[in-house]
Amino acid sequence: MDIAEELAKKQKEISVAEFFEKNKQILGFDSPQKSLVMAVKEAVDNSLDACEEARILPEIYVEIIRVDKDEFQLTVEDNGPGIVRREVPKVFGQFLYGSRFHSVRQTRGQQGIGISAVVLYSQLTTGKPARIVSKISNEDVAYYFEIMIDTIKNRANVLKEEPIIVNKKSGVKIQVNLKGKYVKGKQSVLEYLQNTAIVNPHATIIFSDPDGLKIRFERAWNTPVEPPKETKPHPLGVEIGELMQMTSRTGAKKLKTFLTGDFSRISDHLAQEICNVSGLDCNLDPHSLKLDDLKRLHEAFKKVKILPPSFESLSPIGETLIKKGLKNVLGDLKPSFYSIPVTRKPSVYSGNPFVVEVGLVYGGSIPHDEQVKVLRFANRVPLLYQAGSCALTRAVENIDWRKYGLEQRGGEGLPVGPMIVLIHLGSTRIPYTSEAKEAVAEIPEIMDELDLALKESARQIKAFLIKKEVKAKLTEKFFLVQKILPKIAEKSSKMLNKDIPNLDPVITKIMNVLWIEENVKQDGKNAVVDVNVSNFTPEVKNFTLYADIPDGKVDGKIMPFGEYDENKDYIKWYISTMRPMEKITFNFRLRDLKGEYGETVYYIEGTDPVHVVGAEPLPGDWNLEALKSIIEEEEEEENGEEQV
Amino acid sequence: MDIAEELAKKQKEISVAEFFEKNKQILGFDSPQKSLVMAVKEAVDNSLDACEEARILPEIYVEIIRVDKDEFQLTVEDNGPGIVRREVPKVFGQFLYGSRFHSVRQTRGQQGIGISAVVLYSQLTTGKPARIVSKISNEDVAYYFEIMIDTIKNRANVLKEEPIIVNKKSGVKIQVNLKGKYVKGKQSVLEYLQNTAIVNPHATIIFSDPDGLKIRFERAWNTPVEPPKETKPHPLGVEIGELMQMTSRTGAKKLKTFLTGDFSRISDHLAQEICNVSGLDCNLDPHSLKLDDLKRLHEAFKKVKILPPSFESLSPIGETLIKKGLKNVLGDLKPSFYSIPVTRKPSVYSGNPFVVEVGLVYGGSIPHDEQVKVLRFANRVPLLYQAGSCALTRAVENIDWRKYGLEQRGGEGLPVGPMIVLIHLGSTRIPYTSEAKEAVAEIPEIMDELDLALKESARQIKAFLIKKEVKAKLTEKFFLVQKILPKIAEKSSKMLNKDIPNLDPVITKIMNVLWIEENVKQDGKNAVVDVNVSNFTPEVKNFTLYADIPDGKVDGKIMPFGEYDENKDYIKWYISTMRPMEKITFNFRLRDLKGEYGETVYYIEGTDPVHVVGAEPLPGDWNLEALKSIIEEEEEEENGEEQV
Repeated sequence: MDIAEELAKKQKEISVAEFFEKNKQILGFDSPQKSLVMAVKEAVDNSLDACEEARILPEIYVEIIRVDKDEFQLTVEDNGPGIVRREVPKVFGQFLYGSRFHSVRQTRGQQGIGISAVVLYSQLTTGKPARIVSKISNEDVAYYFEIMIDTIKNRANVLKEEPIIVNKKSGVKIQVNLKGKYVKGKQSVLEYLQNTAIVNPHATIIFSDPDGLKIRFERAWNTPVEPPKETKPHPLGVEIGELMQMTSRTGAKKLKTFLTGDFSRISDHLAQEICNVSGLDCNLDPHSLKLDDLKRLHEAFKKVKILPPSFESLSPIGETLIKKGLKNVLGDLKPSFYSIPVTRKPSVYSGNPFVVEVGLVYGGSIPHDEQVKVLRFANRVPLLYQAGSCALTRAVENIDWRKYGLEQRGGEGLPVGPMIVLIHLGSTRIPYTSEAKEAVAEIPEIMDELDLALKESARQIKAFLIKKEVKAKLTEKFFLVQKILPKIAEKSSKMLNKDIPNLDPVITKIMNVLWIEENVKQDGKNAVVDVNVSNFTPEVKNFTLYADIPDGKVDGKIMPFGEYDENKDYIKWYISTMRPMEKITFNFRLRDLKGEYGETVYYIEGTDPVHVVGAEPLPGDWNLEALKSIIEEEEEEENGEEQV
Repeated sequence: MDIAEELAKKQKEISVAEFFEKNKQILGFDSPQKSLVMAVKEAVDNSLDACEEARILPEIYVEIIRVDKDEFQLTVEDNGPGIVRREVPKVFGQFLYGSRFHSVRQTRGQQGIGISAVVLYSQLTTGKPARIVSKISNEDVAYYFEIMIDTIKNRANVLKEEPIIVNKKSGVKIQVNLKGKYVKGKQSVLEYLQNTAIVNPHATIIFSDPDGLKIRFERAWNTPVEPPKETKPHPLGVEIGELMQMTSRTGAKKLKTFLTGDFSRISDHLAQEICNVSGLDCNLDPHSLKLDDLKRLHEAFKKVKILPPSFESLSPIGETLIKKGLKNVLGDLKPSFYSIPVTRKPSVYSGNPFVVEVGLVYGGSIPHDEQVKVLRFANRVPLLYQAGSCALTRAVENIDWRKYGLEQRGGEGLPVGPMIVLIHLGSTRIPYTSEAKEAVAEIPEIMDELDLALKESARQIKAFLIKKEVKAKLTEKFFLVQKILPKIAEKSSKMLNKDIPNLDPVITKIMNVLWIEENVKQDGKNAVVDVNVSNFTPEVKNFTLYADIPDGKVDGKIMPFGEYDENKDYIKWYISTMRPMEKITFNFRLRDLKGEYGETVYYIEGTDPVHVVGAEPLPGDWNLEALKSIIEEEEEEENGEEQV
């Protein structure tokens, strides 16, 4: 018989459950230790999501009991809204079944896979069914289920289903036996729960470990988090094929209503504009659009001005929690510098809004000879595994940290030095590299945002380091020159009964520095910055001073002497002649500040940097504009690349 | 209404195609550059598998044409057996449909996902259908299809299906348009094809790139590869839950026939033994077994002696190809050392046989200041992405390479130094971390084998380095002491007309070394090794000499003087008194050697190592046994851990 026929006979459909049964590592269940963490994670994440959706303050009980050398019994119980009886088997016993897959808003679970994976792994390794109790508030009785998964059909196999009385308003309790290995410390259940508690301060989590030790993570906030609002896909980044589907599946009869109704950020007015730009009639039936029409529509999205997505569908963790997260890992370590956490504006990849947040601590007693620690969070879930191929780690590796006093071979790879970085990615759809949800894929748009957020934080380190160095240099000479000399002169001249000599030549000789000192007068979100420049050198100076300031913070309206460049976000002063001992003060205004401001970096051009204190030499072959384009190129190169 | 009810209303099933449509990064399609490589990879892997199954020498044509700024047309055509008409839509237009999922043997594709992923990504990014032509040998006409995927149903949507005439015996041709970015060099289509050609020397691959440049990878072998044989699951590592399913699904009526029929490596005799050990009756109906019975059966598997799996279901790439693979990346680099490639015995994880192979080159002109390069292959497929969280890379990171002249902070992480490693994992089921098949999960059993294979290779470096050092030291003194001195003595004594003095005290003073030199007389797979020990010191020596030899190579039958320890694989000689200038020669025999032997490492104990040439000091606080246990502990710790 023909070989092709033979092969054809072997062809068959595989159920998704069967697929995962044979590939449990894809779900993250690849070692006993990891499997235990995964199981806890999936159950707790579900509980947190459910409570948030019901605006309930979560109280979650996690218990792990050792029943045998390598078999554990895991129980996770919450006070969420519960799951209605008819849904329980599907939710726990069927893959790709869930409520959040199609909703465009930030939640922890999204795939409809996680908890079924726990049930599958449990039955695979112990042959025992999962036990589930669910109670909803408007019924008096709860229901108890024993469920296994029929992997060939990808359907729940309900072994037992009976009403029981539980004395609580509502909630879900799941109990499974599974093969595992219980460890403490790195990548442990405890680490996961601890980090979860930090970024979910509205939750109380109680953990009873295999030794019967009870650990309570008390809630710090007593108001439930507002669940992020649902939104429509953002027009930017939607692939042509997705657009094709949206038009074929939409209920809208007219192109215009399709645009305004099925996308976020498209007003009637904008819809009209898009139609004009694409040369399509607003009243066309979207279902009738051909590939070419769709292409024009797709192009038009890029040509018109669309607002970035709003925060509504996202829930960043914010400054306070970022700082808390960092403090927590610090323990007794005392860093010399805390960055002001950076929260970027929301951005989009394939229509999905996302936001990047970064905070870091630096220096002090943080070990100088270890790789920097990267704390990764995605939608408020700590990521403990697969750091090596996670976009959040890779973004750190792609930055040249050598300028910030860190050691980094070739300017790439995880640097070594006194730094801990916390990164949170919030998105309506986290692009995980696998169903295990352990690492984020390197989507170019996300890599760009991560890069910018990290550089914004790194710039703070730079400013800090420069100021430190300046202080050192100052204290050294200042006292002597400014205070002692004049006194000596005065005294000695008195004794000798002569006029006090002009000390300027002496002072400038000794100091021989062009001295730039900033003085920030901050009032809440606004500040006035005085820049005092003193010429403590014997020569007449002629130079250009740059103040490089974070995007959008400069209040450019009042700008005496200074030239302000909107696009480059720096102020430039040109000083044509500055005599010895002369002192000039410039000033500028800042707005929209967060925390205590100290991020200006000063650059100087046109004079020997050796004799300058308080400003960096402007690197010979570039100006700030060039620098920015260089950075962009780097980003270009970095996208899509990985270390081999 | 109750919140639980509200949530229930949102609950729904998701088709696997829909899931992947929204998570294309899980399939590896996360950046335009990577997507293009993925598409080529999936198509070529399928072609190679099909040809192997039909014992056809593969000739594969790959063409990429740029049709727009970021849109490419990819064509892959093979001379395989073709796909029968009725199967084409399912094979290309439906996820989780395939022929190899349930077969226990080494193939590239296994999931029934890859090629459908290409079709999905293509329609998603260009809105265009995939074009497929298939011809099978016993039909005169081929069929042309235009296929898109109905993601909601996970079914093929056939837009066109018509007979056409093609003048070839059989084969498949697929053509898709997709959004991509074409690059050269690292992680490029070309790199993938090149590496594929190396480990598939029976295939001819022709590549026409977007610039119309044609590159031919000519086949080096003219015999088709025997496809690995199908086998049954190996009893070891089968989870209790899997066992439960096997018993419920088996056709066997009796436990004994179930054991012999549904597993590999279980003979009638062994089946009987297993029944006895587990205390179960051989004639029991396997379908009737309860959880407790299964547990006892499961335990019995571990108690009886089961042969490791055979190579039949696996196809290692072997010494020649490993060397070729390394040569290829070397280019003009000249390493000073080529390791003898290591191919481990087949092992098992959850019933799946696998084999690990490692080869490496070291030193010479390989850059000393770059991270070592790791070439990863799984089932003869080069892995280009996600190195950071791939078991193959992690295993390298977990070894302390500092002893081998490489730089490695804290003895972990990818080392820096002059080394290139090639690792191949062959298995009936590669445990990929995701459907993208880019990285291997850190399954403990696999990590162990990788670790052993790498250490076996590393030991070769060590032996090499020691010999190098010895040579250096020898040449330095040898000439002077052994040749010149006696001559001088002779001459001068002649002139002075005196007896030739006894030079021993002089020589031993100058040399002052205990000198160990090995001399290998090899004859094919066997060798006799002479170990010459000379006491060129002024003192009487008393010490123990160890020869550490690779597992199972020692022919322990003839062993004069030496004590041979089977388990520890080393030979031990105790020398109680050795006078100055005394010389002793030991010897031992080796068997089953591969290539030129030079892997013995000599250790010495009981004398000052400073005065020893040719042997390493036996680390104070350990002996080889301890060392081995230490290594095991390390493995323990390493399992399941990742860098955070």
